[in-house]
Amino acid sequence: MTVRMVAEWVGGSVEGDESLRLEGLAPVESAGPGQLTFAADARWAGRLARSRAGVALVGPGVQRPGMTLIRVASVPGAILALLERLAEPEDLPPRGVHPTAVLAPGASLGKDCAVGPHVVVGAGARVGEGCSLCAGVYLGPDVTVGDRTVLGPGVVVRARVTIGRNVRIGPNSVIGHDGFGYHFSGGVHRKVPHAGTVVIEDDVDLGACTCVDRAKFGSTVIAAGAKIDNLVQIAHNVQVGKGCLLAALAGVAGSAELGDFVVLGGHAGVRDNISVGRGVQASAFAAIAGDVREGEIIAGVPARPWKEEGRIVAATAKLPELLKKVRELEARIRSLESARHNP
Amino acid sequence: MTVRMVAEWVGGSVEGDESLRLEGLAPVESAGPGQLTFAADARWAGRLARSRAGVALVGPGVQRPGMTLIRVASVPGAILALLERLAEPEDLPPRGVHPTAVLAPGASLGKDCAVGPHVVVGAGARVGEGCSLCAGVYLGPDVTVGDRTVLGPGVVVRARVTIGRNVRIGPNSVIGHDGFGYHFSGGVHRKVPHAGTVVIEDDVDLGACTCVDRAKFGSTVIAAGAKIDNLVQIAHNVQVGKGCLLAALAGVAGSAELGDFVVLGGHAGVRDNISVGRGVQASAFAAIAGDVREGEIIAGVPARPWKEEGRIVAATAKLPELLKKVRELEARIRSLESARHNP
Amino acid sequence: MTVRMVAEWVGGSVEGDESLRLEGLAPVESAGPGQLTFAADARWAGRLARSRAGVALVGPGVQRPGMTLIRVASVPGAILALLERLAEPEDLPPRGVHPTAVLAPGASLGKDCAVGPHVVVGAGARVGEGCSLCAGVYLGPDVTVGDRTVLGPGVVVRARVTIGRNVRIGPNSVIGHDGFGYHFSGGVHRKVPHAGTVVIEDDVDLGACTCVDRAKFGSTVIAAGAKIDNLVQIAHNVQVGKGCLLAALAGVAGSAELGDFVVLGGHAGVRDNISVGRGVQASAFAAIAGDVREGEIIAGVPARPWKEEGRIVAATAKLPELLKKVRELEARIRSLESARHNP
Repeated sequence: MTVRMVAEWVGGSVEGDESLRLEGLAPVESAGPGQLTFAADARWAGRLARSRAGVALVGPGVQRPGMTLIRVASVPGAILALLERLAEPEDLPPRGVHPTAVLAPGASLGKDCAVGPHVVVGAGARVGEGCSLCAGVYLGPDVTVGDRTVLGPGVVVRARVTIGRNVRIGPNSVIGHDGFGYHFSGGVHRKVPHAGTVVIEDDVDLGACTCVDRAKFGSTVIAAGAKIDNLVQIAHNVQVGKGCLLAALAGVAGSAELGDFVVLGGHAGVRDNISVGRGVQASAFAAIAGDVREGEIIAGVPARPWKEEGRIVAATAKLPELLKKVRELEARIRSLESARHNP
Repeated sequence: MTVRMVAEWVGGSVEGDESLRLEGLAPVESAGPGQLTFAADARWAGRLARSRAGVALVGPGVQRPGMTLIRVASVPGAILALLERLAEPEDLPPRGVHPTAVLAPGASLGKDCAVGPHVVVGAGARVGEGCSLCAGVYLGPDVTVGDRTVLGPGVVVRARVTIGRNVRIGPNSVIGHDGFGYHFSGGVHRKVPHAGTVVIEDDVDLGACTCVDRAKFGSTVIAAGAKIDNLVQIAHNVQVGKGCLLAALAGVAGSAELGDFVVLGGHAGVRDNISVGRGVQASAFAAIAGDVREGEIIAGVPARPWKEEGRIVAATAKLPELLKKVRELEARIRSLESARHNP
Repeated sequence: MTVRMVAEWVGGSVEGDESLRLEGLAPVESAGPGQLTFAADARWAGRLARSRAGVALVGPGVQRPGMTLIRVASVPGAILALLERLAEPEDLPPRGVHPTAVLAPGASLGKDCAVGPHVVVGAGARVGEGCSLCAGVYLGPDVTVGDRTVLGPGVVVRARVTIGRNVRIGPNSVIGHDGFGYHFSGGVHRKVPHAGTVVIEDDVDLGACTCVDRAKFGSTVIAAGAKIDNLVQIAHNVQVGKGCLLAALAGVAGSAELGDFVVLGGHAGVRDNISVGRGVQASAFAAIAGDVREGEIIAGVPARPWKEEGRIVAATAKLPELLKKVRELEARIRSLESARHNP
């Protein structure tokens, strides 16, 4: 690609040599002379000055003498547009059913589906139009999958789960396994049967090795447009609201409810049977142990309002010194008391 | 199902219309007019009063004018009985060996086994009677599996692992991979060979995407009746006691020992080479960094006795205020000291 | 094996009966009369005295009257040598391509490769010499794999990823899935295309169910000799330095950089876009929220220098008592103030 092509794709104007050839995009520190880098605003000027990049995508006001610039109104928007051009088509099986796939009698596939090698589709499963079932996918009996949904290699979807349209599930994720429920009686943990299912609504993305458990009754629900990263645990009967973002290694315990557009950082955890209000943002490692009101920003183990947690973290750093200080004050009080009694 | 049928299944008595038809079980807040809900005791009375449910399973003393009630001695017991009725049979392959399965010569299967598509069973593996190996299961050479054990789709069991009877392993879990052991020499991490194995005793359940590593020597052991959730890490040479419950995203490091009936909350971690006594209960995110005595209840990072941790968490909330208070006291002391010297 | 054989393998000298037969290695507490145990130095003398083991590998100066000893200069070195003898060959498919494997036209395999059942290799993939692709492995189009690399059962490697020589990837791990990147616009999370790839250099080990995401542009890199445990998350554009050790359930967020020989304990987390210097050691549960200088040892949520964190943890244990103490001091000050005004 040339500078001129990139400028056209991103709707930018060139300041310098339009004919330069580029070999990809790289961060400002590591980009080489044949590469394109980026600097959103004036705070990046210093790093851009030291950069060896050949060309930079820059926002309004960013200068870099001696480097060809492609100036745009929004650098993140331009990068998005550029990545949409550069990204190669996803690694999906070709349309049709691979001869090694095993489709049960009574399973139905919509038109234009792509079913890869070693896929298994159970009896009564109904797959919509234009879906991709990558190599080794397992769909249990009576699973429903909406149009244009993509299930990555090794995904397991157990019986009767419902998956919407335009859903993407990453490799080796597991949907609809029985939840972790036991009833202790007679000295042993008896398994609680899981009569419910999982509903994954339209436009949901799940990452790789992520687990969404089947409900005890009713459904575990991942609502429309929620995006969930790798290695996340969603327990039985959890309700994840629309447009939620859950980062890797987060876990939501049984019957907890996340309102719409909740954000959980990496390693965050939500206790069972609590309610996290719409728009709550929880930082990485937040251990959410009770209901949280709409719009709160929280952090910490246990999670507290973010500002309060910040003050506490800052204060704990002074704690060892505070202990000394209090010992010293006590000595001074003792001395005052003793002076009072022995003037 | 009708109210009368449910009452019979759970051994309850009907107060209201026995002939009502029900379309499933739902929590008190979300149940609709055609659904059954539940209210264990008088603390639920307010929520039940506002519920739109058609019928409620209730414990002794719970009242709800205008709603048909099924009264039982124990609501959790009744729900368990009901779920046992409602749960559909698990999604398992039919008896027999699917033609796409690959069984090595010298592998043996007990009678009434169900082996799904694309299963691989290594040489010398011995599978008991009535076992289910779901689609894509991999059993390495010389693995032993006891009677009536169920391995979910995509489960990997590497060579020489021993699995007991009535064990259930969730999809895409991995048993018997080499542990994480290296010896640093000559500037590189040399892999420590893992000459040991894994023993999973009878009646153990493991969730999905859970990993149990092979021992360096001897065995990593999951003792009888232990129940382990999704995405849990059990490192080499760990000993998990009988009837332990380990929630999702918990991890137990090398050679740690958990006594019988230990409970680990989600995201809890156990340090290597320590001993956690029988019946210890660790809350979510407990970072267990040293030996714990039998029966302790612990919480926190690092984990401490639960009551102590509660006091510390409450106290840290007051810490920013305490810092101010101590500064104020110091000023008052200074003022007293100055008054003493300049009366 | 006999005592004499073990002594020869580990380069030790026998004090006692060379002809004893041994049935494996076990820790000092659990070893039985037919087993070999070990005691590195004099600190183990008490436990060794109580041990029922038949024979012990011991370091200089360790005594145990009545037990046959194999004396060596370094007990860990001797155990390593012994495990290298005892470990059975790894569970890998035999050389050749299993008839159920599906190799796309244009995929190339070097000589002496072993390709197990149900493996899928995409078009343009190039696999080096002596590689093992275990059952159910998926290699996407244009993946490159270096010589003598071992991919465990169920490993998924998506298109265009590059894997070096002598790499080992554990079962059900996922390499090269799109990272977790969204752009919020028009009320929905739009997926950011991932035009980059993953590069895994020589001699890297990844555990089971571990995820390494594809870069937005350029590459996510796991540098030579890094060792990563089970259930670890490596996000898009992360750079993991040479010889790093990352324990189970750790997570590294987008574009973070780990210098060479960084160690992350279990459940540790690294924030996005930060830099962790060479040789940093982070304890279990360390929540690394900002840049860390070379060689630091850190711990805590949020992570701080280890010694400081230790002082803070010790101090917080005294915090409830400190609150009482400060209230008491305030009363004493009030009493002094009152005495001053009413002498």
